[in-house]
Amino acid sequence: MQMKKVYLDNAATTKCDKRVVETMMPFFTEKYAVASSEFSHSPGIDAKDALDNARSVIADKIGAETEEVVFTSGGTESNNTAIKATAIANRKKGNHIITCSTEHRSVLESVRSLEKQGFEITVLPVSGTGLVSPDDLKSAITRKTILVSIQMVNQETGIIQDIASIGKICRETGVVFHTDAVLGYCRLPINVEEYQIDLLSITAHKMHGPKGVGAIYVRNGLGIPKWMDGGYNEFNKRGGTENVAGVVGFAKATELIEPNEIKQIERLRRRLYEGIKKNLEYVKVNGAMERSVPTILNVSFKYVEGESVLLHLDMRGIAVITGSACFSRSLEPSYVLKTMGLSHEDAHGSIRFSFSRFNTDSEIDYVVDSVRDVVKKLREISPIGPHK
Amino acid sequence: MQMKKVYLDNAATTKCDKRVVETMMPFFTEKYAVASSEFSHSPGIDAKDALDNARSVIADKIGAETEEVVFTSGGTESNNTAIKATAIANRKKGNHIITCSTEHRSVLESVRSLEKQGFEITVLPVSGTGLVSPDDLKSAITRKTILVSIQMVNQETGIIQDIASIGKICRETGVVFHTDAVLGYCRLPINVEEYQIDLLSITAHKMHGPKGVGAIYVRNGLGIPKWMDGGYNEFNKRGGTENVAGVVGFAKATELIEPNEIKQIERLRRRLYEGIKKNLEYVKVNGAMERSVPTILNVSFKYVEGESVLLHLDMRGIAVITGSACFSRSLEPSYVLKTMGLSHEDAHGSIRFSFSRFNTDSEIDYVVDSVRDVVKKLREISPIGPHK
Repeated sequence: MQMKKVYLDNAATTKCDKRVVETMMPFFTEKYAVASSEFSHSPGIDAKDALDNARSVIADKIGAETEEVVFTSGGTESNNTAIKATAIANRKKGNHIITCSTEHRSVLESVRSLEKQGFEITVLPVSGTGLVSPDDLKSAITRKTILVSIQMVNQETGIIQDIASIGKICRETGVVFHTDAVLGYCRLPINVEEYQIDLLSITAHKMHGPKGVGAIYVRNGLGIPKWMDGGYNEFNKRGGTENVAGVVGFAKATELIEPNEIKQIERLRRRLYEGIKKNLEYVKVNGAMERSVPTILNVSFKYVEGESVLLHLDMRGIAVITGSACFSRSLEPSYVLKTMGLSHEDAHGSIRFSFSRFNTDSEIDYVVDSVRDVVKKLREISPIGPHK
Repeated sequence: MQMKKVYLDNAATTKCDKRVVETMMPFFTEKYAVASSEFSHSPGIDAKDALDNARSVIADKIGAETEEVVFTSGGTESNNTAIKATAIANRKKGNHIITCSTEHRSVLESVRSLEKQGFEITVLPVSGTGLVSPDDLKSAITRKTILVSIQMVNQETGIIQDIASIGKICRETGVVFHTDAVLGYCRLPINVEEYQIDLLSITAHKMHGPKGVGAIYVRNGLGIPKWMDGGYNEFNKRGGTENVAGVVGFAKATELIEPNEIKQIERLRRRLYEGIKKNLEYVKVNGAMERSVPTILNVSFKYVEGESVLLHLDMRGIAVITGSACFSRSLEPSYVLKTMGLSHEDAHGSIRFSFSRFNTDSEIDYVVDSVRDVVKKLREISPIGPHK
């Protein structure tokens, strides 16, 4: 019997859509000139046109002007740029930065590296469901606050922050607002004007585009300096030869998102959740399904270790993770779940299932059966199981 | 008659080799997991293995240990990282950085941005052929010097600096030595031990790999902090999801370089140069052919404007540039050529031809004829021509 392969780690990265790869192809071997040589020769113009078209697609998707979209190497670079360039630009105005405890490591590490350079950092707590309180944010803002960085969607729980309220508070108090929207892009409607966002990070590989390409939205007039120095590329906002193939793939992936795709994914998540609940006791959703993107379901199974579940699911061809993907090299349980108030045990027993349009009903049914068998078996042999 | 297409802008970027693209393909749509989930599931292990293999290929090529090679988004990021991370690491030791006047913009702009933050910058001059004097370097080093950044190969003239002597001086004086080897990699033999290099920047798209991926060599024990924060990726030296497809393509491009390739390119350059010299007077090589990589030929045509030559060659399907590719959005003549002592007129009349293994004898002959016709025609209509 051939083993099924079920990939449910789509919040870490997604399969590149074949149509995206096809669109990228000519930019490797035919239209391969650098876009910055548009003033020199015709192949350069071809590259520049492709870059401009891709930029329009992405700008439209978030309600931005084209020149407000700057391509980067991914979400991590976008987050580093937003935070560090804003810090450099506003050093004379103030040195206080606010973020929250469940942010992606690229945000948390960036503010920590600024802290070593004399910046003051406030890390807001989150509620049991993972939400930052807008009132807490308002109270934390001082005259020295120059930046608020609160993510749109959490990488482990899928929890959606109240970006509209946070944007409003920041705009009213004259503080720059950055949001890491890497897991929100193409999963939620985003309008940078409506949400009063100044800086926004997105990346291609979370929605069936290639790895190694992302973008940062920089509101016109914000006036942050370059973080990546070198050349006039990207409206003189980011140096480096443009990854034209990657950018074209990013735009194509954006165009391929279908209106009913999220509903279909929501249905899959519901199917998995209900299947698990029907079969197993002592199961708890981390976060809240009604406040999260449908692409992510994070659950804790009491009386088992997430690592053991993971290993047994992997042996059955199922790819999931326990804790943040970027975190799995550490032996610590997820900082996101811990800061949401989960016990050490519940955090250790957590599994993140994350979905894409390529998952199917029969895959989900296979996962439901596998999870049931694995968790039951592990609980039977556990010295601390529910029936001991 | 179908117009010939001759691409001689290979120092800006090269055509991706088809075999490179084929090697990358599975990493878009089959082996697409993130390499950092190697501890979570089998697809992650596949990605990590591919990343490790690619790293070995590149480390071998420059005489480094595998863990000394850190993948980045390209040469610009590598240069920014080398310079800025070294500055942060050594702030207490000193604030003096030495570079030279013909460096790539990503180096020059990086040191200028540090200057605004209180660092002192010495920009060494170059000789008429574009060389930095090791004696000048030695004299410039003070007790406060923390970094020397001198490129291996210049992007406009192909001039090769005396890296061995520079490395020796830096090591003897205890100063960190960085070299931008973007145009030297796979064009010159490189051994980081022999040349006593501490930091070295390379990129894939200058040698038939994809755009958007590069690497930085960081000598073991150098102890520079992360510049791109976020996660434990790349031995905790560079955050961000690894661009596995890009990295695999980079390694494949490295493996595809053949021992006789450079000799073949050298022959093409000689053919072009001799063809031009035979047909036209008042032609001068910028730099020195015996001190430059064979992939680049930079010549000035007296009594003509480079822009006009460029335009007319483009109409004949020939892609070349005048001045640095990253520089062509400015209306200034090349800073590289000006700092080598060329007159404004000679710099304006300069054309860079740059070659790859995909160029052929018949292409070169077509370019020789086209250059002859274009330059003769332009000189005839010039008010300041040689016979006026």
